[in-house]
Parts: sequence; structure tokens; C-alpha cells
Amino acid sequence: MPVAANGPSLARSYPLPATVVLGTQWGDEGKGKLVDLLSESIDVVARCQGGSNAGHTVVVNGVKYALHLLPTGILHPAVQAVIGNGVVVHLASLFEEVETLELQGVPNVAGRVHLSDRAHILCDYHQIADGLLEAERVAAAAGGVGGAIGTTKRGIGPCYASKMTRSNLRVGDLREFRSAQVPLRIRTALAELRLRFGAAGEAAVASYDVRAEVARCYQLARRCEPLTTDTFDYVNRVLESGQQSVLIEGANAAMLDIDFGTYPFVTSSNCTVGGCCTGLGVPARALGEVIGVVKAYTTRVGEGPFPTELYGEAGALLQRAGQEFGTTTQRPRRCGWLDTCLLRYTGRLNGLTQVCLTKLDVLGCFDTLRIGVAYRYRGKRLSSMPASLRALAECEVEFEELPGWRGVELGSVRCWSDLPAAAQAYVLRVQTLIGCPIVHVGVGAAREAIFLRS
Amino acid sequence: MPVAANGPSLARSYPLPATVVLGTQWGDEGKGKLVDLLSESIDVVARCQGGSNAGHTVVVNGVKYALHLLPTGILHPAVQAVIGNGVVVHLASLFEEVETLELQGVPNVAGRVHLSDRAHILCDYHQIADGLLEAERVAAAAGGVGGAIGTTKRGIGPCYASKMTRSNLRVGDLREFRSAQVPLRIRTALAELRLRFGAAGEAAVASYDVRAEVARCYQLARRCEPLTTDTFDYVNRVLESGQQSVLIEGANAAMLDIDFGTYPFVTSSNCTVGGCCTGLGVPARALGEVIGVVKAYTTRVGEGPFPTELYGEAGALLQRAGQEFGTTTQRPRRCGWLDTCLLRYTGRLNGLTQVCLTKLDVLGCFDTLRIGVAYRYRGKRLSSMPASLRALAECEVEFEELPGWRGVELGSVRCWSDLPAAAQAYVLRVQTLIGCPIVHVGVGAAREAIFLRS
Ligand SMILES: Nc1nc2c(ncn2[C@@H]2O[C@H](COP(=O)(O)OP(=O)(O)O)[C@@H](O)[C@H]2O)c(=O)[nH]1
Ligand SMILES: Nc1nc2c(ncn2[C@@H]2O[C@H](COP(=O)(O)OP(=O)(O)O)[C@@H](O)[C@H]2O)c(=O)[nH]1
Repeated sequence: MPVAANGPSLARSYPLPATVVLGTQWGDEGKGKLVDLLSESIDVVARCQGGSNAGHTVVVNGVKYALHLLPTGILHPAVQAVIGNGVVVHLASLFEEVETLELQGVPNVAGRVHLSDRAHILCDYHQIADGLLEAERVAAAAGGVGGAIGTTKRGIGPCYASKMTRSNLRVGDLREFRSAQVPLRIRTALAELRLRFGAAGEAAVASYDVRAEVARCYQLARRCEPLTTDTFDYVNRVLESGQQSVLIEGANAAMLDIDFGTYPFVTSSNCTVGGCCTGLGVPARALGEVIGVVKAYTTRVGEGPFPTELYGEAGALLQRAGQEFGTTTQRPRRCGWLDTCLLRYTGRLNGLTQVCLTKLDVLGCFDTLRIGVAYRYRGKRLSSMPASLRALAECEVEFEELPGWRGVELGSVRCWSDLPAAAQAYVLRVQTLIGCPIVHVGVGAAREAIFLRS
Repeated sequence: MPVAANGPSLARSYPLPATVVLGTQWGDEGKGKLVDLLSESIDVVARCQGGSNAGHTVVVNGVKYALHLLPTGILHPAVQAVIGNGVVVHLASLFEEVETLELQGVPNVAGRVHLSDRAHILCDYHQIADGLLEAERVAAAAGGVGGAIGTTKRGIGPCYASKMTRSNLRVGDLREFRSAQVPLRIRTALAELRLRFGAAGEAAVASYDVRAEVARCYQLARRCEPLTTDTFDYVNRVLESGQQSVLIEGANAAMLDIDFGTYPFVTSSNCTVGGCCTGLGVPARALGEVIGVVKAYTTRVGEGPFPTELYGEAGALLQRAGQEFGTTTQRPRRCGWLDTCLLRYTGRLNGLTQVCLTKLDVLGCFDTLRIGVAYRYRGKRLSSMPASLRALAECEVEFEELPGWRGVELGSVRCWSDLPAAAQAYVLRVQTLIGCPIVHVGVGAAREAIFLRS
């Protein structure tokens, strides 16, 4: 009798488990820079969730690269880039990003992208729906229920919702453009939008040219063909062989996770470690180091409770020093002290094995630093982050104070021993409070402004 | 300076990792019986995804227990039962199930249920939407697009879709009935249903009594209060302490997974190992043995391709011998030979460490047995399960033949050495083909009709 006749037999061990990089707060922690650094010695870098609502910024030799759908690792010419099944892909945005990077001199971008045939396609009508839903929520808020979530209106939520009702197109369907009835499905989706949103839907769809969309979609389908891959098979093969290394690059962050974040002010995917498995098809056992990226203070975009938030001049100081302004909108991000209650929560959730602490340099703008160490709710200390936003909003934070290093510029520091004593003390105190080793420290936007502790 | 002021510090190790039990085919593998067996020595049993579309059946002393939302482990009086954040909960069904089990003599059911405050609530209007969506798909099929998915109409898909659009209620919201504006949110959901489905929606909602629903919901909210738990904190605490053991009980099965199953003929959650992390908030590192339950042949409910399907008399034979009829509808399940291409795929996906092979007794109805060992697509052997249903439907299966043990009744066998040689050979051949050790073998519906190989 022959042995297992096709496919590799089920691998029992993973000689070189995948490294995972995740955001631990509300995003914008500087994950991009760490991934960029680690990618120097990585073969395959994969995205597993989210869409083009995510944005990493990496500065190389003064050139700023903006990544949205593509993993940051693509900036390294030897890296193969995977867009996993858990990602929702707006095809026009993807190809725009590919072109921009190629124009900026990144070699052979399109040739190194492996786009999952199981990834869901985000269409323009998802973006229209996103806008209409947010408008409804804003209107409802006037009537006293709900309110804006502050979505990026990139269509992420509606696309994942279509995935759930099992009415969405997947990348693989484009190979079967006619038999998968892509044109008919686009028309059906638009008809549903009109029904659901009435006059507002009618108005929003009026300028939508179905014929043009179908034609565009057909062109995009042809461009997709060479990128389309069974990424499940590809990534697992790499992990089973142990010949190449894999890095999984989380987008968004734990407090924006659909299950564990501050629902409903969250994104519609799992930005925590489980999302690596569901979004790529790699087993839990194939994951190795799980690195949490922690900004040395806290920021948040949009609505929702934020216990350690700083208002007035102190908040504005952090905004300026940290350049905490939205990349597309330039809206200032809300800023506050580091919250280690939150970090203990997201650390347990992800089973972090190490932390990369970023933007330490920014804290140089204060004489005295504060760290949130405990939540007090109705007189009692909480053992974990509450699920209820009302409870979270009512929490009082207990703070610790530490001396700052005001006036000392950290941007050119390149090793642990060159950090001022106060900065070292801050890092070590954070490490104790979150109970996880801080391995990397970031001190500036430049590619080289990051070093190992020790 | 005090140490970490509240919460356990981030656990670095998991002295007693959780055991995971997952379905590897299209469901109905007999997961319930294995979980029931393992639960004898387990302290906490958790569900992490799905809703009451799942159903496990366990026969104890001739009494048949049907589990839908509650984990099967609840049948053991010392077990604590967790319904994790990833589950969608129809509250009335939950309490019905609790009552039925208590009437059947299971002690203190309500007192042992820990219902996640982050779990999403499945309302009657989700079930209405499910029916309307399926009706639309059936109507569209006449026009040549789409077609019935064959949903259970339990509202699972629409509920997960509401979760994604961030408009859904969570269990924790019931504690804040008024401020969370539950009544208003029910009314809004109904209004949206009317809009979206026009006349059909109007008709479906006509008999829906909003006042009665709100009143019922208020009653249910009060009953929920004592069960509501921060299950994230609870389960992680247990895992970090290592004092108690945890078993995670998967519902549905890998080929029904929203990402990796035969989309769109799938359920709207991740029934693979990543779903344990996203649906409970336990890190990947905290998972230990991952046990795949494999039925000795293949069955499938509803639509979609099924490469090793048996038609005519052979299929009917399996249906009768295996009692392959839907638990609620009595509809016969589609039956076919064991498909080891499929099992290699779902095994890699989950990183299975062992397999439990069930219903071996049923194969006693054949003289000669066949096992699917490879897929051939347009003349080429495939290296993995294709994402495209068209491709899957076109695949030809290569089979192996093995002698059966017809006439030998396995139902009373209680150890490996008492199995006929042909049955042992079948099990060992399957083990080789899937590349994963088969540890348990099931030979009958009774609780005791299962034993360890070795
Ligand atoms: N001052 C300072 N800026 C940093 C540091 N690390 C990253 N940055 C910058 O901070 C921003 C990081 O935000 P972003 O890329 O949106 O975060 P991501 O989404 O987590 O990758 C970028 O503009 C980086 O160049 C650091 O250590 N110090
Ligand atoms: N003949 C036979 N029946 C079994 C065996 N194991 C389980 N069953 C029965 O098969 C059915 C299992 O289906 P079900 O509980 O729906 O599967 P689950 O959803 O995977 O737990 C139940 O009726 C069991 O009593 C077995 O080894 N042999």
C-alpha cells in the first residue's frame, strides 16, 4: 500500500515557529518600525486581519513609507509578503499601494505578494454602507441612542458583516469571474443597499456606475490572478519545513479587537493572537515568540472611554512631542499616561512573551511622569479590565509618580547603557508592572532609533 | 514602590494547558461523547463559538441528553461550564436547556454556568432575518445566482453580522437595561428589518410583539444576572494557577469554519483552533493537546460539494447503520467514505496532536471499505484542499480498498485487542494516511463504548 498519497503528511512539529507582533493599546504603537527591524532576518511576513484601515509608517533614510494593506516587511527586498484569508481586501487600494511603493524604489513588489484565495473582497459598496451606517448612528445619537463609532469609513465593518451572512465575494471567485457571477452579485449588493437605506441609500448609490464598477472589477481580477495563492498551504509548508522564518504582523491593536476591545468602539476583526490562527490557518502550536508593542504612553483615536487620558496643556504637549495626529485626517489623537491595567489585560489575552516599548523619547517633555497602576470601581480595585464601558468610564485610576529626564534628548541613544538613569528606571518599572520582559526600546522615528535592552 | 497593584501579574507559564476537542469534518463526528468521557477528570469545560445550531448528543444509562448551547461537560456534576465571549446566545433557548437538564436530574445546572459578559445576544429578530435571507437566496437561485445555504435558521449568521457592524447587544449590557437602552435597540433592529426586506419583512415582523419581547427580555436579563461572569478573567486565572484543568469544546467542525470551510456552505464562526483563543481570550500558548474527532466515514448536512459521497443503496446503508438523520428535522444526512485529503487539511489547520476515531462499528455493514487518499484535479494531484467549490466539485478522488469485518458486531468491544484484525488494520491505515496518532476509538453510542488504542 502506498503512503499518504498527496500533500505533506500532517506535520507534528514546527522547527522554527512563527514570530508574532501585536499592538497592545489602541493602535499607532509603532508596530511598523519593529516589524521593519525584525524583517531584516525574516523570509516571509504575513498580515492576518483588518484591511486598509490599518496604517504603519516607516521612515527609511528620510523617506516615509506608508503601508496599509501590505505587510511592512515588503520594504525588505528579500521578503515574501502574505495577505492572509482573514484580511479584507479593497483591490484598487492594494494595487495603488503596490504602485506607490514601486515608484518609491522598492523592488519587485507585485512579484512578492501572495494574496490568499480565501481572503474576502471589500467593494466600494461596503464603503458606501459604512458611511450610511455611521450617518444613521450620528442621527440616532440625537434621539438619544447609540452615537458615532468613529469608523474610518473604509468599509471594513460592512465587509466582515457580508462575510458573516455568507454573501461576499472572495479573491478566488475572481478566477471564475463569469461562473461566480460577479456582475450579478455587485448588482444584488447595490439593490440591498437601496432597500436598507431608503432615500439616503438611493442618493449614495446614484453616482455609482455599475457598468464601470464591473469593468474595473474585471480588470482588477486579471491583475489579481498572478498574486492569488493558497496561502494556507504556502505558510504551513514554510512552517513545517523549518527552512524559512515567518513573522506575523498584527494590524490595529488589542483594545480595538472585536471581542476584547472597548465594544462598539472597535474594529471588526480579532487583532489579538487568535486572529493569527483564524486569519492565516496556522495552528496555535506553530506560534513562537509573541511580541507586544507598547507605546510609552497611551493614545486613542475616536470615541470611547480612556481612563488615563490627559486633557488641556498636558495632553497637547504629548500630541506635539509625539506627533500624535492622524495620518490621513491630521486630527489630533487623544493622549494620556501609560495604563498598566490595560497592558496587563492585553498581555494576558495574547500570552505575550516579550514587549517592545516605543516612543520613550517623547516622555522627555515632562518633569514628572505618571503611570496608571490600578483601576478603582465604586471603591474596589478591579482584578481585570471591565467589559462594560460605563464601568470603565467610572473607574478611577491609581497612579504612581516617577521622575522624568526633561531636557535630555533620547533620539540619538543607541544602547541601553546610554539611557539616562531616570529613563532606565521608567522602563524597568513598567516591566515589573506588566510582568513581561521589555526586550526592545524605541527612541525615535528613524529606522535605527531602536535597540535591545540588556 | 508597590508591585503591580491589581490583578495577577502577567502569567509567563501555563502549568496545565487547556485540552481542545474539535470537529474535523462537517460536524456530527461524535464530539459530545469524547468530551463527556474526558470531562470525568476535568474541572472547567468551555464553549467558545457558535450558538444553538450546534448539537451534541450523549447517551447515559439509556437516557439521551441533548446539548445545544451548554458545553457537554455540564452533565458531570463537578464541572464548571463556561459560555465564552465568542458564543452567540439566544437567552430563552439557554434557560430552556438549563431547565430540561435539571428536569432530567442533572444537579445544579444554573449554578455551574458562567456566561461571558462579552458574549453577544442572539435575538428573535436575528432568527427572522435568517429566514428572510435564506428565502431571498432561494428566490435568487431561480434567477440563476446563489442559492440556499441550508442554514438552520437559528439566527447565527445575522447575529454575527450585527456583531461585525457593532450594533449588537452583549450579555453585559443587560445589567444596564435602561442605560444600554435595550428596548430602543430592539425597536431599531426591527425597523431595519422592515426596511431591508420590504413587504416580506413587514409580514415577518407583523406578528412580532415588541412590548412582549421587551418584557421577556427584561425577565431574561434578571435571570442572566447571577450567571454573568468575566469569563476572560475566570478562565485565564484557572489556566495561570494550574490548580484546575480546562477543556475547550468545539462546536460545528473545521469544514464548516467561516474561513476554511466550504464557503458559503459554512457557519459564521471559526470552528478551528484559533476560535478557542478568540472566543475565550486564552492565549495560543495556553493550549495543550488538540484532539480532532474523526468519524470513520464522512457525512454532510445541506448543500455543497462532497467528493467521497456515496449515492443510492450504499449511501442509504450508511444512513441507516449510522443513524445519520438530523436530530431536529430527521432529514437524512449525506454519507460517504472517509476522506483523508480533507482530514490532512483540517489536521494541519488545527495542528492536531491526536485523533479520536468514532463510529467504527458502523462500517461493519460493508464487505469492502474504501478510503479517499488523494484528489485529482484536471489530471494533477492537489497538494491541499482547494478553496474553490467548483474545483472541489470537479476533483476526482483516488481510493484505496481495505477488507471489512462484516458480520462482526463491534458495539460491545472495550479494548483494542478485542477488535477484529480488519478493523485494527483500518484504524492503523487511517492513522498513517492522516499522519496523526489515533488515541481513542469509538464503537457505539453508549457512554462506555469508547476505548484507548495502545
Ligand atoms: N518619536 C518616536 N517616534 C516613533 C518611534 N517609533 C515609531 N515612531 C513613529 O511613530 C509613528 C508610529 O505610528 P504608526 O506607524 O502609525 O504605528 P503602527 O500602526 O503601530 O505601526 C510613526 O510615525 C513612526 O515613525 C519612537 O520610538 N519614537
Ligand atoms: N454507532 C455509534 N454511534 C456513536 C458513536 N459515538 C457517538 N455516537 C452517536 O452519534 C451521534 C453523534 O452525533 P452528535 O452528538 O450530533 O455529534 P457531535 O455534534 O460531534 O457531538 C450521537 O447520536 C451519538 O450517540 C460511536 O462510536 N458509534
